[in-house]
Amino acid sequence: MTSGAGERKDPVCIVGGTGALGFGLALRLGQAGIPVRIGSRDAHRAQEAAQKASEAVPHATYTGYENAEAVTGVEIVILSVPFRNQSETLTNLKHALMPDQLLVDATVPLAAAVSGKATRTIGVWQGSAAQQAQEMVPEGLRVVSAFHTVSAALLTDLDHALDEDVLICGDRREDKAKVAELVSRIDGLRPVDCGPLELARIVEPLTALIISINVRNKVRAGIKITGL
Amino acid sequence: MTSGAGERKDPVCIVGGTGALGFGLALRLGQAGIPVRIGSRDAHRAQEAAQKASEAVPHATYTGYENAEAVTGVEIVILSVPFRNQSETLTNLKHALMPDQLLVDATVPLAAAVSGKATRTIGVWQGSAAQQAQEMVPEGLRVVSAFHTVSAALLTDLDHALDEDVLICGDRREDKAKVAELVSRIDGLRPVDCGPLELARIVEPLTALIISINVRNKVRAGIKITGL
Repeated sequence: MTSGAGERKDPVCIVGGTGALGFGLALRLGQAGIPVRIGSRDAHRAQEAAQKASEAVPHATYTGYENAEAVTGVEIVILSVPFRNQSETLTNLKHALMPDQLLVDATVPLAAAVSGKATRTIGVWQGSAAQQAQEMVPEGLRVVSAFHTVSAALLTDLDHALDEDVLICGDRREDKAKVAELVSRIDGLRPVDCGPLELARIVEPLTALIISINVRNKVRAGIKITGL
Repeated sequence: MTSGAGERKDPVCIVGGTGALGFGLALRLGQAGIPVRIGSRDAHRAQEAAQKASEAVPHATYTGYENAEAVTGVEIVILSVPFRNQSETLTNLKHALMPDQLLVDATVPLAAAVSGKATRTIGVWQGSAAQQAQEMVPEGLRVVSAFHTVSAALLTDLDHALDEDVLICGDRREDKAKVAELVSRIDGLRPVDCGPLELARIVEPLTALIISINVRNKVRAGIKITGL
């Protein structure tokens, strides 16, 4: 777990993998047989999370690194940090991210980022957090938006059988297909192509909607598209 | 169909009932045994739509009136007009709507209203079309937001078995319960309380998302909340 990340080629890295959603995704991806690198600002915390994930999913391969090291050489980087840290995180990764990588942004501009309600969002100048990410990553690196409607708690509860959709927005079909393939490997999750990246401004606020539904109905809601 | 609307008490009136969504809702409500008044700017067109609905659902009771007459005396007024006509319609109904009525706003601020794309929305100063409606109706009349994710085509196709949710936003539980009761009477539609009216700013754009999903996947999508 402490050897250099650059030496090996793991398919997926989760930046913010010590957070609730990131850790839940790590568990489910590991369960699906996909080696997962967990990234954190603090290498020690990343290694702790990798250790904890290994205990929860013994057959899986988890490693933990500081974010910049974690992203080095992986094909898909999932960015799962609070909105208030998104910009800083991407600035720090400026020289670590490479144009041939895919960044899957799971950030949600909840008003909680500015001490507001979790059932409200704040306006992002670029239209959405995903579009802000697209503006900040190195030239050529493409951003896909996903994972906003999946409950961190349900992902983490490995006894819970998932049965919901992952809404995916992105400008290139091949990129979305790659993310869809990853999503499909998790039992009970179905990928749905929602259109270009700009649609993220409709999908991201769904986290706030789901939080509102959860509060009102005392559930852990998700979303499923009918008619597909 | 041409006798004065004020004389009788129908439970529901659909302002814009000659439009695709309004007409589809009329069919399904009539099928559920609920007498429906169809409102239009043009009384003649309203009567034609009522006639057409009667032919599709012979056991139902449809009547058609000019909008202001149509809303008189009904308990629930469903507003189903293009966004570009919402403000004008509510101004015209200023003296016809009464504080003890419930207005169910189904308006979507699609960018199509300003010759933009149907997969984009425009910003409404009040936050959502429903909140604009709340600002315009007579003092005391409450607005509930609903029916944004239901396909007009699938409502109209009576051979299609519906199986999806209706997302409801509103500031008072009793009002939402009343709309939920109406929704529940339509086979295959389940009402979901999504929180206060301000959440309409997240739900309304879902129409644009669904249009984008439809285009990409060649389907007629709807939404279902999982975990309820």
